[in-house]
Amino acid sequence: MSHTIRDIATALGAEAAGNLDLRVTRAAEPQAAGPDDLALAMDPKYAGGLARGKARAALLWQGADWQDLGLEAAIFAPRSRVAMAGLTTMMDPGPDIAAGIHPMTVIDPTARIAEDAAIGPFVVIGAGVTIGPRARIAAQVSIAEGASLGADALILQGARIGARVTIGDRFICQPGAVIGADGFSFVTPERSGVEEIRATLGHREEIRQQSWTRIHSLGAVTIGDDVEIGANACIDRGTIRDTSIGSGSKLDNLVHIGHNVQVGRDCLLCGQVGIAGSSRIGDRVVLAGQCGVNDNIFVGDDVIAGGATKIFTNAPAGRVLLGYPAVKMETQMEINKALRRLPRMAAQLAELQKSVSKP
Amino acid sequence: MSHTIRDIATALGAEAAGNLDLRVTRAAEPQAAGPDDLALAMDPKYAGGLARGKARAALLWQGADWQDLGLEAAIFAPRSRVAMAGLTTMMDPGPDIAAGIHPMTVIDPTARIAEDAAIGPFVVIGAGVTIGPRARIAAQVSIAEGASLGADALILQGARIGARVTIGDRFICQPGAVIGADGFSFVTPERSGVEEIRATLGHREEIRQQSWTRIHSLGAVTIGDDVEIGANACIDRGTIRDTSIGSGSKLDNLVHIGHNVQVGRDCLLCGQVGIAGSSRIGDRVVLAGQCGVNDNIFVGDDVIAGGATKIFTNAPAGRVLLGYPAVKMETQMEINKALRRLPRMAAQLAELQKSVSKP
Amino acid sequence: MSHTIRDIATALGAEAAGNLDLRVTRAAEPQAAGPDDLALAMDPKYAGGLARGKARAALLWQGADWQDLGLEAAIFAPRSRVAMAGLTTMMDPGPDIAAGIHPMTVIDPTARIAEDAAIGPFVVIGAGVTIGPRARIAAQVSIAEGASLGADALILQGARIGARVTIGDRFICQPGAVIGADGFSFVTPERSGVEEIRATLGHREEIRQQSWTRIHSLGAVTIGDDVEIGANACIDRGTIRDTSIGSGSKLDNLVHIGHNVQVGRDCLLCGQVGIAGSSRIGDRVVLAGQCGVNDNIFVGDDVIAGGATKIFTNAPAGRVLLGYPAVKMETQMEINKALRRLPRMAAQLAELQKSVSKP
Repeated sequence: MSHTIRDIATALGAEAAGNLDLRVTRAAEPQAAGPDDLALAMDPKYAGGLARGKARAALLWQGADWQDLGLEAAIFAPRSRVAMAGLTTMMDPGPDIAAGIHPMTVIDPTARIAEDAAIGPFVVIGAGVTIGPRARIAAQVSIAEGASLGADALILQGARIGARVTIGDRFICQPGAVIGADGFSFVTPERSGVEEIRATLGHREEIRQQSWTRIHSLGAVTIGDDVEIGANACIDRGTIRDTSIGSGSKLDNLVHIGHNVQVGRDCLLCGQVGIAGSSRIGDRVVLAGQCGVNDNIFVGDDVIAGGATKIFTNAPAGRVLLGYPAVKMETQMEINKALRRLPRMAAQLAELQKSVSKP
Repeated sequence: MSHTIRDIATALGAEAAGNLDLRVTRAAEPQAAGPDDLALAMDPKYAGGLARGKARAALLWQGADWQDLGLEAAIFAPRSRVAMAGLTTMMDPGPDIAAGIHPMTVIDPTARIAEDAAIGPFVVIGAGVTIGPRARIAAQVSIAEGASLGADALILQGARIGARVTIGDRFICQPGAVIGADGFSFVTPERSGVEEIRATLGHREEIRQQSWTRIHSLGAVTIGDDVEIGANACIDRGTIRDTSIGSGSKLDNLVHIGHNVQVGRDCLLCGQVGIAGSSRIGDRVVLAGQCGVNDNIFVGDDVIAGGATKIFTNAPAGRVLLGYPAVKMETQMEINKALRRLPRMAAQLAELQKSVSKP
Repeated sequence: MSHTIRDIATALGAEAAGNLDLRVTRAAEPQAAGPDDLALAMDPKYAGGLARGKARAALLWQGADWQDLGLEAAIFAPRSRVAMAGLTTMMDPGPDIAAGIHPMTVIDPTARIAEDAAIGPFVVIGAGVTIGPRARIAAQVSIAEGASLGADALILQGARIGARVTIGDRFICQPGAVIGADGFSFVTPERSGVEEIRATLGHREEIRQQSWTRIHSLGAVTIGDDVEIGANACIDRGTIRDTSIGSGSKLDNLVHIGHNVQVGRDCLLCGQVGIAGSSRIGDRVVLAGQCGVNDNIFVGDDVIAGGATKIFTNAPAGRVLLGYPAVKMETQMEINKALRRLPRMAAQLAELQKSVSKP
């Protein structure tokens, strides 16, 4: 599939110059670009790469002299990553899922599936499932009884949608994700050591035998519109009400969402983030990779946490966090600086004590 | 499926009052409860919710005045989470796996499967596998050659049970879990940089080229009774003897158990916990989310570790841990308090040095 | 399958003594070994175990007196873990994947598959896929359109190879791994809070509404020779160029590799390691379990990082790291020592201030 420079510029809402009828088939890095590629050179530092490559057209930084760069055509990107979003959307061939329902599938006759859905081989769809228009469901997916998916769902290989899970429109689910496993919720007949320590912050009266009784998950998972879930990520069912993920939120690979958790709208939860049971995450929260959120706490709107931050207590709206345990990012940066000097401080303090205690 | 208040109270071993023949079909939060729901209001703070909802029956805190709350019937829960365990067990419809063996499965003729097993579509079962009575095996599961499962197994979608893995009774396996992948064990012909650093705690004589030769895993995994494994969790095979998980232990989503690890009985390993190769975990150990355990160490019975604790050295029985590296929780709380004052301490120390060094 | 002591010694390049025609069928720990097992006793501390077990032959430490240990034959291992590599390779029966292509598979007619490939049930192989000689592909695997695998691939149950992924020879892929999910790359039309904080290190001018637009992944994943990927690990596609994993590198379970990441040759990335987008990892880098690497940074050749190290900034070649944030391992050990004394230091400092400020 090829596109004219004109079509691409129009799609991006960007200005273009030169031969607008030139066609390109792929996007490429400047030095690797061939004559049919659109080189991506949205910063002057790529000028050298353009010279080494063979591109005739490029996506350039604002104000670039395209003719001097030896190009036949150019598109000018005002904000480069936004342009990348538009361009990659145009050029992504998408997964190869044949139209219609593959004969080697097991679909319950009570499932209601839009006529234009594409469903790959070895897919299993349970009783009472609803699947909206234009769904694309790749090989080996399972969608359990009573689940419902809105329009334009894209469910990739081997993803698992659990019973009674409700999902909005334009859902994207990467391979191997599990939405709707049972919550991890166990109780001991007597007060457990964990309950005691939570009350005493570390002190234990006595150690007792204890074994665990399961609390089943009667709730499911509710997911809004425009949500994307990463590969092998896991979202557990709620105990009574549903675990929920708000519209516009994106979860990366291997993210873990415990039972009853409520994630707000337009959040970004990066790779390997974990949120323990019953916590609430506000809107537009961004948690960098490997962050952790304690159970039963609240993380306010617009909180941003740096990599591997571990949030143990409620975080007010707008707070920028870092560290284990999480504190304000600015504070943590100060702490980190002081920590590197800490061994020296210890020596200085000892020295000082000696000199002061001298008569 | 509906239950009378009498039946529920009997199942929970709890007292009840009012119209014991009233039937409820679902459990619900008080404010969301309809007239056929059992409202869950095990704390006085839910009284307002009951008033806003439409429940006629509720599971109430000990001593609640059910008539004053406008109810027709009530059950009194002495320990609310224990009541939840009983109630949710009663009300969980369980996964929809049709009786019998689905025709679209590949089951080796030498596998011995209890006659009452329910096995879903696209399941693969290898040679010599043994599966006990009342097993429920959901779609797309694989159980490799020589594996054996006790009675009442519930294996959910896409879980992978490896060759020669041995599992006890009442096993629950969430979707996508992998039990019995090969261990991560590699060696270099010469002493590797890692071996050198372990000996010297950080110092390296010289850097050598090195490439990795694989140590294969001849052992398997042995799992006791009443174990539950979370979604997309991974348990590796042992090198010679089996990796083992003791009876009653529960592992949450995305937990990683390295080769040769021995986990004791009645442990709780929460989301994203990782245990490196050859470590031993005692009985009743509780590791909160994202904890890590170093390889080749011992974590004693009844150890409890807070969120994201990283345990590098042996931990004695009963110890309560927190931090990176793990120290006693009480100590870590003191350290955390001091850390927040550390930048100020550094300034004070500098100030003090100046004033003391002044003649 | 049994082996003579002579054959094993030859395979290991090791010396042997006694009845070299004695046959053994399994490797076992000394105390658990039966008369047909080869006991593994590569350290004098196992002598007692040998006495308690029934082995007639053993793999012994250099210089052991095999006759005094009551054995009929012995092999002497100069470097025990290297011997384990050779021995376990010999004795591993490997997964049971029947020769040929199982009839219950869906393989696109344009796929080019070596004639001697073994492909299990419910496997899906897309258009234009290339699979080299002696491939073994277990049940329920999917290999999407245009992917290519070299010789001797072993792909275990339910692994997912994405479209246009290129993989070298002798690839081993554990169950559930996902190679080639879409990258986690989103942009806001206006500058996002995250971009602002990266520039200001924690300070925010104002909080704006923001929702996320997807940058699609047009690149794929390129993997060299002799690579192994762990169970449920995830490697994302690149945006324009491929994400890449160098020859000889080994990734453990639940490892996350973000889009555009370049991992060098002969690296070891242990369980649950995460590498954020666009970072470059050199050759022979070893990251212990739960390490994290920030996005867009460079980790030099031969870097070794201890458990749960979080690397936020470029790390020079050969550096040995530990901590959150990562510092030199030696420095972190000093910091950790000082941290345990920190509460006491705080008290001492306060005391000193008092005594100094006294007139």
